[in-house]
Amino acid sequence: MRADAAANRRAIIGAAWALFAERGDEVPMRAVAQAAGVGIATLYRHFATPQDLLVGLLDEAFTQVTAIAQAQDDVWELDPDRAWTSLVRDLADLRPGALAYGLAPRVQASPSLRERVEPIRDEAVAALGAALGHARAAGLVDPAVTVERFFAGLALITRPSPTPMAAVIPDQVGWMVGIYLRGLRP
Amino acid sequence: MRADAAANRRAIIGAAWALFAERGDEVPMRAVAQAAGVGIATLYRHFATPQDLLVGLLDEAFTQVTAIAQAQDDVWELDPDRAWTSLVRDLADLRPGALAYGLAPRVQASPSLRERVEPIRDEAVAALGAALGHARAAGLVDPAVTVERFFAGLALITRPSPTPMAAVIPDQVGWMVGIYLRGLRP
Repeated sequence: MRADAAANRRAIIGAAWALFAERGDEVPMRAVAQAAGVGIATLYRHFATPQDLLVGLLDEAFTQVTAIAQAQDDVWELDPDRAWTSLVRDLADLRPGALAYGLAPRVQASPSLRERVEPIRDEAVAALGAALGHARAAGLVDPAVTVERFFAGLALITRPSPTPMAAVIPDQVGWMVGIYLRGLRP
Repeated sequence: MRADAAANRRAIIGAAWALFAERGDEVPMRAVAQAAGVGIATLYRHFATPQDLLVGLLDEAFTQVTAIAQAQDDVWELDPDRAWTSLVRDLADLRPGALAYGLAPRVQASPSLRERVEPIRDEAVAALGAALGHARAAGLVDPAVTVERFFAGLALITRPSPTPMAAVIPDQVGWMVGIYLRGLRP
């Protein structure tokens, strides 16, 4: 891919991510193109259908989850507490709740979309599972906590909140992630 | 109030609660009357304006919060752990997130509504504050946790979730309340 094409693709994924996180579910291709600052023809050249765009978006999101889970591979042995805390904070910074609540029902509802997304998802689940294994072995997480439950809890905490609630409670997500880390211990 | 009038009022509040929890914000008077099984004239006799209905609903919700907070008054001395756990579980069963996320922005936006709701809210905050004081004294809650932060955390956890997420993760709210109780400790 040429450098400008790659830049366009990144801009499109970034714009789609922000729009899905903000609106929850329905995002027209035209709105994505406009937010990305590209023409509609360019958008369709990268993603021929709305489903292709969703797959691209989920591919990017799960790739980042995998990278975050693996980024601590060298730290577990030295300082498992730091590895686990960094991993959970970095995952929370992705705001998984922003995408999960809007996209999970759509993936659930479409067998063809599910089929395309599952391999990407499975890789992220495997990477998170390995990390959770380290955290369990270090006594940082209750053995009963599965990857699905852990990730769903983080999605719940990081779900976008209407402004007034956020304004009253400063840094609610950061605070809740700390609560989550402590509460997950055996 | 006559017995049938009181029953109608309860039915109206119950229906409004369920509708607001489900839809989030806008609930027409006609839909409330229909869900409550009363005529529109009966609804307007009890609540002359949509704002009156909102105040009635918030009055009921905060009254229940106050009652739950005070229900443990005799238990703290004997068994503070049981008192605190019961209180938090009972509060979570009210699903404060279902109402808070829909109604907080509306209360915030309307000075006249805010003025009517604040005295009711203050009473609930005072009752919760007393309970939190007991929990802190018993070493069950970090001293830095304020009533507002505690309640907002519970609202975040109990916010309604689209069905697919709830189906994948059984009893997510109950599990998160347990995490919350452990995470709140000093």
